[in-house]
Amino acid sequence: MIVIVKPQASAEQMEHLLERIRQFGLQPMVSTGSERTVVGLLGDERLLPEGALESLPAVEQVMPILKPYKLVSREFKSTDTVIEVRGIPIGGKQIQVIAGPCSVETPEQMRSSAEAVKAAGCRLMRGGAFKPRTSPYTFQGVGDEGLDYFRTAADAVGLPIVTELMDVRKIDLFLEKGVDIIQIGTRNMQNFDLLKEVGRLDVPVILKRGLSATIKEWLMAAEYIAAHGNHRIIFAERGIRTFETAYRNVLDVTAIPVLKRETHLPVIVDPSHAGGKAWLVPQLSKAAIAAGADGLLVESHPCPEEAWCDADQALSPQQLMTLMGDLRKIAEAIGREL
Amino acid sequence: MIVIVKPQASAEQMEHLLERIRQFGLQPMVSTGSERTVVGLLGDERLLPEGALESLPAVEQVMPILKPYKLVSREFKSTDTVIEVRGIPIGGKQIQVIAGPCSVETPEQMRSSAEAVKAAGCRLMRGGAFKPRTSPYTFQGVGDEGLDYFRTAADAVGLPIVTELMDVRKIDLFLEKGVDIIQIGTRNMQNFDLLKEVGRLDVPVILKRGLSATIKEWLMAAEYIAAHGNHRIIFAERGIRTFETAYRNVLDVTAIPVLKRETHLPVIVDPSHAGGKAWLVPQLSKAAIAAGADGLLVESHPCPEEAWCDADQALSPQQLMTLMGDLRKIAEAIGREL
Amino acid sequence: MIVIVKPQASAEQMEHLLERIRQFGLQPMVSTGSERTVVGLLGDERLLPEGALESLPAVEQVMPILKPYKLVSREFKSTDTVIEVRGIPIGGKQIQVIAGPCSVETPEQMRSSAEAVKAAGCRLMRGGAFKPRTSPYTFQGVGDEGLDYFRTAADAVGLPIVTELMDVRKIDLFLEKGVDIIQIGTRNMQNFDLLKEVGRLDVPVILKRGLSATIKEWLMAAEYIAAHGNHRIIFAERGIRTFETAYRNVLDVTAIPVLKRETHLPVIVDPSHAGGKAWLVPQLSKAAIAAGADGLLVESHPCPEEAWCDADQALSPQQLMTLMGDLRKIAEAIGREL
Amino acid sequence: MIVIVKPQASAEQMEHLLERIRQFGLQPMVSTGSERTVVGLLGDERLLPEGALESLPAVEQVMPILKPYKLVSREFKSTDTVIEVRGIPIGGKQIQVIAGPCSVETPEQMRSSAEAVKAAGCRLMRGGAFKPRTSPYTFQGVGDEGLDYFRTAADAVGLPIVTELMDVRKIDLFLEKGVDIIQIGTRNMQNFDLLKEVGRLDVPVILKRGLSATIKEWLMAAEYIAAHGNHRIIFAERGIRTFETAYRNVLDVTAIPVLKRETHLPVIVDPSHAGGKAWLVPQLSKAAIAAGADGLLVESHPCPEEAWCDADQALSPQQLMTLMGDLRKIAEAIGREL
Repeated sequence: MIVIVKPQASAEQMEHLLERIRQFGLQPMVSTGSERTVVGLLGDERLLPEGALESLPAVEQVMPILKPYKLVSREFKSTDTVIEVRGIPIGGKQIQVIAGPCSVETPEQMRSSAEAVKAAGCRLMRGGAFKPRTSPYTFQGVGDEGLDYFRTAADAVGLPIVTELMDVRKIDLFLEKGVDIIQIGTRNMQNFDLLKEVGRLDVPVILKRGLSATIKEWLMAAEYIAAHGNHRIIFAERGIRTFETAYRNVLDVTAIPVLKRETHLPVIVDPSHAGGKAWLVPQLSKAAIAAGADGLLVESHPCPEEAWCDADQALSPQQLMTLMGDLRKIAEAIGREL
Repeated sequence: MIVIVKPQASAEQMEHLLERIRQFGLQPMVSTGSERTVVGLLGDERLLPEGALESLPAVEQVMPILKPYKLVSREFKSTDTVIEVRGIPIGGKQIQVIAGPCSVETPEQMRSSAEAVKAAGCRLMRGGAFKPRTSPYTFQGVGDEGLDYFRTAADAVGLPIVTELMDVRKIDLFLEKGVDIIQIGTRNMQNFDLLKEVGRLDVPVILKRGLSATIKEWLMAAEYIAAHGNHRIIFAERGIRTFETAYRNVLDVTAIPVLKRETHLPVIVDPSHAGGKAWLVPQLSKAAIAAGADGLLVESHPCPEEAWCDADQALSPQQLMTLMGDLRKIAEAIGREL
Repeated sequence: MIVIVKPQASAEQMEHLLERIRQFGLQPMVSTGSERTVVGLLGDERLLPEGALESLPAVEQVMPILKPYKLVSREFKSTDTVIEVRGIPIGGKQIQVIAGPCSVETPEQMRSSAEAVKAAGCRLMRGGAFKPRTSPYTFQGVGDEGLDYFRTAADAVGLPIVTELMDVRKIDLFLEKGVDIIQIGTRNMQNFDLLKEVGRLDVPVILKRGLSATIKEWLMAAEYIAAHGNHRIIFAERGIRTFETAYRNVLDVTAIPVLKRETHLPVIVDPSHAGGKAWLVPQLSKAAIAAGADGLLVESHPCPEEAWCDADQALSPQQLMTLMGDLRKIAEAIGREL
Repeated sequence: MIVIVKPQASAEQMEHLLERIRQFGLQPMVSTGSERTVVGLLGDERLLPEGALESLPAVEQVMPILKPYKLVSREFKSTDTVIEVRGIPIGGKQIQVIAGPCSVETPEQMRSSAEAVKAAGCRLMRGGAFKPRTSPYTFQGVGDEGLDYFRTAADAVGLPIVTELMDVRKIDLFLEKGVDIIQIGTRNMQNFDLLKEVGRLDVPVILKRGLSATIKEWLMAAEYIAAHGNHRIIFAERGIRTFETAYRNVLDVTAIPVLKRETHLPVIVDPSHAGGKAWLVPQLSKAAIAAGADGLLVESHPCPEEAWCDADQALSPQQLMTLMGDLRKIAEAIGREL
């Protein structure tokens, strides 16, 4: 950590700063330049409470040197982590497209969804039994029995299932139903009590990026899970909130190579929620794979216009099939497979 | 709801659109202009699932006419709601400054905090026993016993207490300790399960704005609480995330008059978290009151530089006292009192 | 245009609204619903001054139906426009990578830059003689003679040149030197006097997106150029400003398919300025091409670390060569060529 | 400047870094910590080209210590600068409200505007003869003769005039008409050629903040003007672009105290463009003054609903009069006058 001292700081204020630094078990190293005095801190800067030095009268600015995440960082583990889910690798050479409906509706809808997902060549399936909805008056998901419909339909075609957990009180149910990957949604990326609980489980977690979460905050959210013992974490970029109103969110493709450099964990992309429109999904999917994503989360539905939620962003079975063919070509162009 | 039809839509696609509208129990009214055909929908547009019409081939754009919130809206109740907390009115002519430390630390720190808050003339006190922290490695709050320290200290000087709830499993504890106002923090503004639960309580709720929540999403989050039965909701603006890095967040003063027009509920402001620096608190507080806020949430600490968290944003007892004097003058200038 | 009337509007206010609409040569069509009255406007809504109806007491909201741009829109011309620059097509099946240094430095640097650009297989070259710099104390470009260095070097290898125009007073110089494509930079996207002037020229224009320009504002800026007579416009996405600080800007790949749907004009991408780091350029370039971009603007330099500006974002000759090979595979995977 | 070295940097890469630092005339000072090596640079870091060190293989991050602006900084001049315009002080104890129409329309409209501005007690007047408009098809201002209408109307009541300059080719006209304060608009905040030219004039300049300009970029834009000789600069905050769509822009009140700390120059606020609605102007104006602004730029019109542009954001003469009375009370509450 580097502390920049105010030009007008008094000798007494300076002494107080050095004393405080020593109180936290760190060693100050003063370097007096022509325009500014700078104090370097030797020792582990993570010992300092946030804001502890900033509040002192001598201090102009405090600049951290170390990154605040550790277990999830590439420095901690330099090789790519491949997470296996019932034999399906995520984070390796093979790219995984996780498809399925936004929302679990009926056993029949899940059955035909699962068949379409399987037929398109996808190896994992997604679907939500509990839905975070902006309005209290819209469909909130079918709830507990939805997991049964999903489990049954996916088992029939042999697909592992991915579904969103919003409430710590549902964890037992998720374990009982054998959910293969637990998804933590955008709005819960910093629901720290939930992160701690999934950190104690032995189930892989897809951690979606918060709507306006920085890369650093996202890595710290994953660090919460890892610090509680669960190291099987998959990052899912799903678009960020900006000033633009012509589409729902802005898919942040730059996050893909940046995350791949900062962390050893897999990175996937959700083009459906990012763009918010089915017609955008193919181009965004291709961009994500070309930029190095390890997989996708794609919404598909047996009959999109009759979907109970997000009807305008689901792909039809035929569109999903076409997309898989197109993505295969991109995968090959960059030396991967799908 | 107004549907704008694509110029190139076929007669068949148009017919399909009208049929779908009728299936949802609404009456279409077609109006053919020189450049565009427009379909108005008679009936309650809230009957339509989101995205249901957008997915149809004839549709270019769908524009809602009705606002999606009801119970919290000014249309539903035209007069200002004043929420009484142990005799203290929030939302009336009198402005309330809720002060106290970021975090509950020790019984002694809470005792001297309470005395300073009382001495400055504040009528409610804030403090956190459970802290949402970006890093898993930093201080997470003292937990359950913190509520005891807080309750004891506040009772000694007769101040109602405000504290943050992050986990549904802590609700019984909050009720048992008689928390006077429950705060829902920024990161939980769209934790819908938590909103539903506090919606079932008979305790006033301060609902902080999400870091990048729109006014509409914020009103919808309040609508969740109201729809479950609890109408005593106080909005708290606390700065939004933007591109600017010179300060932590941007205090959105425009939100104050806009909310006061859209909702009948009280609106307060947290200048401490918005600016992130103690030296900014006085100017931001004055701006908030001048813009029409019904109160403030201010961080204060007996000895800011020794605070266990956010040391650089707490006011000292003397600074709090001075602030109250300055705000009293602003309050009088706009015909209110403090 | 649709006007939503306030629920509490009086009959007199309503009458005033209808009268004003007629004064602007439009025909009002009133439709009274159960919760809201709506007024449709028949005629060309572009006749209305901005804000003219919003200021009336009866009006709650005004919603435009027509898009405000015309000449650049896909409705105006449904087929893709291909812009030919000395025989090189931009906007067709072939993808163009326009490479070269951020800044013109010396004749020798331009000579070796041009050779590297040519050797890598690029068909157009970029370079700046006038540089918009955040600080008045940093290198501002070599100025007029820079265009000579550039022209000479590019002519030697037969490459058309692209360079940025910042000041209307330099137009004659640009014409005299035969600049093949004039670039309008990010900071000048809404320099309307400059747009009008290049609108009067017979030279293709690359119009970069403003740092926080919406798609609609960007299309309107192009409409300025088109409305003054110059229809040879190329859009260049170069990253937008967001809250994220881990990289310079966020490359908005969603803008590519959205623009390709809204306009008939070519769309290219500048991955160098978007990411701000050379190591990000390959992944961002691949994503842009996969998403449908018609070309790229890439910074390259004979010796990046010695570049006079943006040293950390230029590719070396070898890196440019490798990139071209990688992009060729992506181009083939999507049925295009490079 | 502080350079953080990559943990995996080789000895050779490290040596190359030190050599480059010396080549730029700076002295490296290496400090080896337990987790990172850090190199401090002694000397004036402004000698380094941007990106020059970032491109070296040994470098993880480069952190500047000095601020890049000088003449406009509080460090350069610690006392507040008061700018006198025909005897009217801007930046002192007295607050200035600069009112007038968005656009100059007719001699008669300017005459009645000037009378209303004067009658309300304002001491300066604003109005635009040249208008930056998003669409090429809307009213672009009356042009040259507009300055005559404005000058004549303002002279009749003895008010200095403020008007926007968009094009360097109009400077002679502005000087000839004796414009008292030149306004540089939001879209031209980084039109560096324009900044250089007004930097050579002996006329005060109001520099509006760019729509998404950081405080640092804004200060640098002012530094451009100051570096060319004109030190009479007034900052005007006018709202920034965010994700919020409920109002046009977000008035950034935090910028006021932050600028007052960073620079010695006056800071004013434009509440009309920030909120985009006349009904928001009073609350935003009060907030701005309470937060420490030295003045306001307010749109007023003899008959707002007939204004040729921005009809929904202008105050009527009566509303302006009322606002001035309200602001006077706020000014007194904070120990200033109006």
